[in-house]
Amino acid sequence: MAGLRQSRVIVAGGGIGGAAAALALAAKGAQVILFERSGAFGEVGAGLQIGPHGARILQSWGLLEAALDTGVQPNHLVFRDALTGETLTTVDLGSRFRDRYGGPYFVTHRSDLHVLLLTAATNAGADLRSGVAVTDVITDGDRAVVTTSDGNTHEADIVVGMDGLKSTLRARISTDQPVSSGYAAYRGAIPYADADLDEDIHDVIGYIGPDCHFIQYPLRGGTMLNQVAVFKSRGFLAGVEDWGGPDELGHAFARCHQTVRRGLHHLWTDRWWPMYDRDPIDRWVDGRMILLGDAAHPPLQYLASGAVMALEDAKCLADYAADEFVGGAATGVWPRVLRDVNAERAPRCNRVIETGRMWGELWHLDGTARLARNELFRIRDTTSYRYTDWLWGYSSDR
Amino acid sequence: MAGLRQSRVIVAGGGIGGAAAALALAAKGAQVILFERSGAFGEVGAGLQIGPHGARILQSWGLLEAALDTGVQPNHLVFRDALTGETLTTVDLGSRFRDRYGGPYFVTHRSDLHVLLLTAATNAGADLRSGVAVTDVITDGDRAVVTTSDGNTHEADIVVGMDGLKSTLRARISTDQPVSSGYAAYRGAIPYADADLDEDIHDVIGYIGPDCHFIQYPLRGGTMLNQVAVFKSRGFLAGVEDWGGPDELGHAFARCHQTVRRGLHHLWTDRWWPMYDRDPIDRWVDGRMILLGDAAHPPLQYLASGAVMALEDAKCLADYAADEFVGGAATGVWPRVLRDVNAERAPRCNRVIETGRMWGELWHLDGTARLARNELFRIRDTTSYRYTDWLWGYSSDR
Repeated sequence: MAGLRQSRVIVAGGGIGGAAAALALAAKGAQVILFERSGAFGEVGAGLQIGPHGARILQSWGLLEAALDTGVQPNHLVFRDALTGETLTTVDLGSRFRDRYGGPYFVTHRSDLHVLLLTAATNAGADLRSGVAVTDVITDGDRAVVTTSDGNTHEADIVVGMDGLKSTLRARISTDQPVSSGYAAYRGAIPYADADLDEDIHDVIGYIGPDCHFIQYPLRGGTMLNQVAVFKSRGFLAGVEDWGGPDELGHAFARCHQTVRRGLHHLWTDRWWPMYDRDPIDRWVDGRMILLGDAAHPPLQYLASGAVMALEDAKCLADYAADEFVGGAATGVWPRVLRDVNAERAPRCNRVIETGRMWGELWHLDGTARLARNELFRIRDTTSYRYTDWLWGYSSDR
Repeated sequence: MAGLRQSRVIVAGGGIGGAAAALALAAKGAQVILFERSGAFGEVGAGLQIGPHGARILQSWGLLEAALDTGVQPNHLVFRDALTGETLTTVDLGSRFRDRYGGPYFVTHRSDLHVLLLTAATNAGADLRSGVAVTDVITDGDRAVVTTSDGNTHEADIVVGMDGLKSTLRARISTDQPVSSGYAAYRGAIPYADADLDEDIHDVIGYIGPDCHFIQYPLRGGTMLNQVAVFKSRGFLAGVEDWGGPDELGHAFARCHQTVRRGLHHLWTDRWWPMYDRDPIDRWVDGRMILLGDAAHPPLQYLASGAVMALEDAKCLADYAADEFVGGAATGVWPRVLRDVNAERAPRCNRVIETGRMWGELWHLDGTARLARNELFRIRDTTSYRYTDWLWGYSSDR
């Protein structure tokens, strides 16, 4: 892989996706510099679900054991009706599941996974620089020239744009803007003992209801409980600028089962997250720059796969580059790699965006549609993987 | 049954329900006079579905064979997506079905069944008078006094109010009005050969789609094709007085599969039916008068059970009266019979109203809700009768 070793890669953005890309490429021998706009690398201290599609990738990077050390492997995904509390269906995450998908389903603190990836990237030789933003990229010709906010310029063979939902680099390819779902999310990770639960929780439990849902799962070896409440904002519908505020929370869940309503008391109310995705775009490449992660394909959170898509992107890019550079550098390798990664990943990630929207709509149905959804969940064959193989069984291997 | 033989019963309304009540009571020995407002007994010449719950009752009156002679026994109920034409689920109406429910599912010309019931009622001794409306009922005391539109008065032990959806007698009990669904129905029964079909139809086929549906089945030994198109009226939503006109038909089915759109050409367009039901009421009895059939509990058409509910009412009333009068007349028999019939029938018929509304909503879903409905239909266990036992397995026998 002499060619890849001589390659210079600049990663724009130091979230989970950027850290993963820096790690994956550095581990294959590339010279990686990562720029993060913020003064420090950081992630919200709330929970993150990683399916087996992500766990397998962490395994390939030698990080799964460490991730599981601080994470929790829930026994089931549980879907309950938010109004009645009835359990509608479950996904058993036990040995049969792990065998089928080649890895576990686990939940973790976002910051735990982030630190793990940043540390591994550094150990692999990547140069991580915070407090520096990529402000411009010239991608013509057989190299890229990056200007950063400190006034410097940097030459690279490719630039990986992983600057997230509000990506500035995406503007080079598309004029589109984030699409508001009109839903706001509240989060909270609290000591488990403070949660005042009626049951011991070893599962990821989702209460799905009309225009709202509520998620609960344990974190950090069961010492913490992570909760997320998401609802369609009345303020958004009314055109309020700072929509989704805590004054809307109680009303949004007023019809819900008491278990849900009681859980709301433990959410952080000093900040909340308006939920956005973007419409799918097919082309992520501009010359020597490729958009990946949320910058290319930010989904809503319903499939719990946004972070994993970025891990898949990182692995795919590094794998394809390593494959193409076998036997020494040759002209036109990087453009071919970027084209192939784009072609492999765009259908996948755009499906996650579109299915995520549909899955959210399915959760939030009311009236007769809700009854049909509930009955569908009740009678589905829980031993079948036909709805999830596409998501959890994917590999970019050629 | 000496007591019942001395009883005088007046039936108000000569549709399918009134004819059935006159027949059932006359057959048990009561002296029945039926008044029909119209100058002639008549029914629309379109199709009517009779499930096994109705077939069993016709059998008990000795009329099933004759009804099947002019009717058709379809092989299946078939539910298709109106947009794609995909068959979503079927109900096999074969021997296993007939064994479970003790009778066949058949379709007939409305007028064929009506004539059959009117003839049988006459043969049983009922006095059927058309062109005479019941205009007033005094129900105090131990008899009823009926005033008719020809100026006469008539004494009776009970009055059976079966004057339909727009019942005038219901006003004695409730001030409620028919509830508009906002849907309009178009019908058409044409020679089978004129229908220009892609397939031979031996089933009841329902195409269910967003805000619309379309039904096809053969009539009269397969020589005719019956079609019904039902859609949510834009005119109704806009407050147009004469809503649901033929100008709305094409637009309402514009997204539908070509099989549906082609079928629309064979509908009658000189008249259409705005679809109404009423909110359930629990009390149908006022002194010596009882409301039955559509006057008491008019459902939307989705469960194809409106006419059968009237047959069940008629049988229940006649059976309970015959039971109570065994051993000779006694004071207070009729009030007890009316009370018991009301108590037996109201939960049943009100469930048909409410489930009918829900079933219609399920047919008319769009978007993600439609996809969930379709998947529910696809994966349901077609060998199970758990959704239909309540409807088709009912008996009022004590």
